[in-house]
Amino acid sequence: MAAPLSRRDIDFLLYEWLDVPALTERERFADHSRETFDGIMDVAQDMAVKLFAPHNKKGDQNQPYVGDDGKVVLIDEVKPALDEFAKAGLISCGFDESLGGIALPMVVTRAAMAWFQAANPGSSSYPFLTVGNANLIAAHGTQEQIDTWVKPMLEGRYFGTMCLSEPDVGSSLADITTKAIPAGDGTYSVSGTKMWISGGDHELTENIVHLVLAKAPGGGPGVKGISLFIVPKMLDGERNGVSLVGLNHKMGNRGTTNTLLEFDGATGYLVGEEHLGLSYMFHMMNEARIGVGFLATSIGYAGYLASLEYAKVRTQGRNPASKDPASAPIPIIEHADVKRMLLAQKAYVEGALALGLYSSKLVDEEQTAGADAAKRAHILLEVLTPIAKAWPSQWCLEANSLAIQVHGGYGYTTEFDVEQYYRDNRLNPIHEGTNGIQGLDLLGRKVVMNGGEGLAVLAETIGATIESARAAGGAAADYAEQLAGALGRLQATTATLWKGLDPAVALANSAAYLEAAGHVVIAWIWLEQLLAVGDNVGDFYDGKRAAARYFYRFELPKTGPQFDLLDSLDRTTLDTDPAWL
Amino acid sequence: MAAPLSRRDIDFLLYEWLDVPALTERERFADHSRETFDGIMDVAQDMAVKLFAPHNKKGDQNQPYVGDDGKVVLIDEVKPALDEFAKAGLISCGFDESLGGIALPMVVTRAAMAWFQAANPGSSSYPFLTVGNANLIAAHGTQEQIDTWVKPMLEGRYFGTMCLSEPDVGSSLADITTKAIPAGDGTYSVSGTKMWISGGDHELTENIVHLVLAKAPGGGPGVKGISLFIVPKMLDGERNGVSLVGLNHKMGNRGTTNTLLEFDGATGYLVGEEHLGLSYMFHMMNEARIGVGFLATSIGYAGYLASLEYAKVRTQGRNPASKDPASAPIPIIEHADVKRMLLAQKAYVEGALALGLYSSKLVDEEQTAGADAAKRAHILLEVLTPIAKAWPSQWCLEANSLAIQVHGGYGYTTEFDVEQYYRDNRLNPIHEGTNGIQGLDLLGRKVVMNGGEGLAVLAETIGATIESARAAGGAAADYAEQLAGALGRLQATTATLWKGLDPAVALANSAAYLEAAGHVVIAWIWLEQLLAVGDNVGDFYDGKRAAARYFYRFELPKTGPQFDLLDSLDRTTLDTDPAWL
Repeated sequence: MAAPLSRRDIDFLLYEWLDVPALTERERFADHSRETFDGIMDVAQDMAVKLFAPHNKKGDQNQPYVGDDGKVVLIDEVKPALDEFAKAGLISCGFDESLGGIALPMVVTRAAMAWFQAANPGSSSYPFLTVGNANLIAAHGTQEQIDTWVKPMLEGRYFGTMCLSEPDVGSSLADITTKAIPAGDGTYSVSGTKMWISGGDHELTENIVHLVLAKAPGGGPGVKGISLFIVPKMLDGERNGVSLVGLNHKMGNRGTTNTLLEFDGATGYLVGEEHLGLSYMFHMMNEARIGVGFLATSIGYAGYLASLEYAKVRTQGRNPASKDPASAPIPIIEHADVKRMLLAQKAYVEGALALGLYSSKLVDEEQTAGADAAKRAHILLEVLTPIAKAWPSQWCLEANSLAIQVHGGYGYTTEFDVEQYYRDNRLNPIHEGTNGIQGLDLLGRKVVMNGGEGLAVLAETIGATIESARAAGGAAADYAEQLAGALGRLQATTATLWKGLDPAVALANSAAYLEAAGHVVIAWIWLEQLLAVGDNVGDFYDGKRAAARYFYRFELPKTGPQFDLLDSLDRTTLDTDPAWL
Repeated sequence: MAAPLSRRDIDFLLYEWLDVPALTERERFADHSRETFDGIMDVAQDMAVKLFAPHNKKGDQNQPYVGDDGKVVLIDEVKPALDEFAKAGLISCGFDESLGGIALPMVVTRAAMAWFQAANPGSSSYPFLTVGNANLIAAHGTQEQIDTWVKPMLEGRYFGTMCLSEPDVGSSLADITTKAIPAGDGTYSVSGTKMWISGGDHELTENIVHLVLAKAPGGGPGVKGISLFIVPKMLDGERNGVSLVGLNHKMGNRGTTNTLLEFDGATGYLVGEEHLGLSYMFHMMNEARIGVGFLATSIGYAGYLASLEYAKVRTQGRNPASKDPASAPIPIIEHADVKRMLLAQKAYVEGALALGLYSSKLVDEEQTAGADAAKRAHILLEVLTPIAKAWPSQWCLEANSLAIQVHGGYGYTTEFDVEQYYRDNRLNPIHEGTNGIQGLDLLGRKVVMNGGEGLAVLAETIGATIESARAAGGAAADYAEQLAGALGRLQATTATLWKGLDPAVALANSAAYLEAAGHVVIAWIWLEQLLAVGDNVGDFYDGKRAAARYFYRFELPKTGPQFDLLDSLDRTTLDTDPAWL
């Protein structure tokens, strides 16, 4: 079985490109060094490969079910793997020392966790959901809440969930109907139905800490009335009023329970202030969106490496120039079209991983840089987040499709792993805000807020890379001109769309805008990588050069027709009457 | 449950566009009329909806297995449905009256069969494989072979298969190792292993007629040495030397058994002459490729209609212009981005269905038109075949992905049908020649053979449509100019690629060539449909106008960067050393 990720690539990104060890000059990370980062990565890589990857297929083929006693049954391998994960300190590693963590930088934490996402998305999702939950309570909860709920989560004794959606609500949180009534003792009585709750029930831990969006009395209509509550599954050893209505059965991502939960007068504890619940949740949601980008990237990466290994050993056919049937068949990796499918995957998954790590490092900058740099990092992270979620979930899924195609008919069978990757990855354009929602977020909010500072900071950042590439000369300088052209179009198109237009017209083609902006960003990320490659010699660096070339030759030009469409203020979708469909 | 296809669209294509009733002026079809065509379509639609659609999901969730007695077990619903199918004369309908058929034109036959492909790809594949097999024996077999094997197949008492691939061979038939040794009595002893044999074993019929490619002594090396044999599963009531080694377990298309078969001294009967087997098989393979295009189209169509129905009833969110949370949520079909996802699906699946029916009518022209017109139809069919296979299998799969996205999280669950469609359709870019093979076939063979007459005839045909559209004025005239530009690029690019280049360079980007040529062809097909729409009023015609607009605004411009890449004779894939990946 191929490794699910490339350690060489991760080391390149962390050390040869992002200069992550420089973070140890910051007070928060002063106890760290390249050695501690490498140590964590060794542990993650080893554990992911040995304890998580081996049951990835089994978890897919034996999805969770509800036993006769009403309890959720998972395959036996999940709990011991997660217990080891917690024991190694991998749930808490990114948290403050006061919470039992080691304050590992986000960029290193994400790289370490990507091993588990690549090896086994189903089993590893439980602690990742837990980390998101714990982060939110640590940021907005009281000390008592932190002691009661966060600490056991970081020790792996409790796991956590996020309960946002409801059966009839989906992307439109304004319409949730779950209610929270003050019980008079400081707690609330929470009632309603929550849908799509990942990790919503299981027997992996003593308790499950649900973070629940609900409406308390006195809030305004819509999202303004939403508050956030901690609602544990178990309370003082008894079942709280939270019950499992059923498990959703899915095309992929089957190792993770996904549940419909009924809250029926369950005891809940308010987090922060009433009616500010959505703002707290957005804090977590941005993190979760980058997490989804990593998940998509990791599954795409695993597929790339699996198909690469297959293409090296599988022989078939001959070169167009030597069709002699008496000659031996060649490994399929020598066929141009197979190289195309591998190069495309490489360009997608390595580009996505680089963007994910870059975005994660912005979280570290936001937390530890000086005020100006921190603000800048914050703005850049805001504008990159929808892209860091949507781009990998579109293109690393495409990578998984190419991984199947490289395998031919074998890739369509359950004998190989790539068909599962393709099914697992199809979730990522849907959850944590569909890619449609990400397009509206990017074009409707992120590039316009505060007078367009998001796009301005992005353009300055990309512009600096372009200047460096021009100075570097060679292929980098050529790509720099191409990128400058595409960036100019992104800026001009954005201005055209927001020049006093009806928002409905401006937003009509937000999906095309998201795709085009995503390709500009990934082209920039590839140019960044190429600059880090510099004059280094060897197959690894030549591979980076080839993938960058692929992206600039095959991918970035796709943005031309997208910008044309946007600039024309095309009304095709707006003008289509539903009755015509 | 939504209807799996649109009868209104089929009627438009057959009667308002292709003028299929005019075929009844030909002697072969003289007994037919619009009424007999409608009658067949009524039967097909009714039977597909009532007998096939209801067990589509059950067949997926209960895949075939080998029972303790070594026999293949399918769900109970398959055999009665197929018996009814045969009883209604639907296996034989396209065959001559001498064979028990009714000589239904291919274009009508394909339209009728599309109902079954849309309703249940798994169950309906058995008779479709049988039709391909029977067609081949009818064309190249002896009268005795026809009486012995074809007639029972057309009655549904036997089913048929095609045995081409082998475990280590796949797309490279030159390397097959199955041997056929003359037994001295006019029969052959066939030995070898065949992989990916759909319908290769089951208990649905008394017998299974395998058509097997094998090498008889004395043939040249490579494909020249290949002969074709009829090898029945049962012979005189005894098992012939063909055994089931195992079933392949697949991501989708699970209702169809897909097998690994061992031929061990099995008795085989030569079809036609020795060493000409591949040429006979190609006759069938071209048919099968168009069949795969229909399969992809039909599954895409079913997904489009399912997501359309869902989008009309599912309410969520509000218009960008009226975000008042007190207002009622709107049906999601009113959101611009949902309309985009539906319009894209409509443009893909209706465009693909139109191309499939156009190609099928070319088969009828080939058979019944005067010599010049028949030759022209033959050439056009040759050049369109790789596109009619690959384009639907790429874009109707994309349609299925959009159908999931319209459903949001629900689309990812097995509670709805679209996730199965997506899994089922992923097979189509792989089998009957991967899309990579189709690209090589189009660019390496079809557009260059006989001095480039394939592309010349295609260009003349498209040119005639452009002239009509210019004369028609309005949107059609605008699209005509856009199409003329794209067609000109296709011709110029083809000339550039074949101007004395090393074939390896010319073919390096055959995948991009196939995609660009496919989009030019579908743009032409949409312009044809728009001309058939004319000045007609009503939602149906406005829908056609909207989908044509979508294709010309959102899709055809994608070919620009593809032609740029091809014109540059890009060497990115060629120059990439496998060691860099």
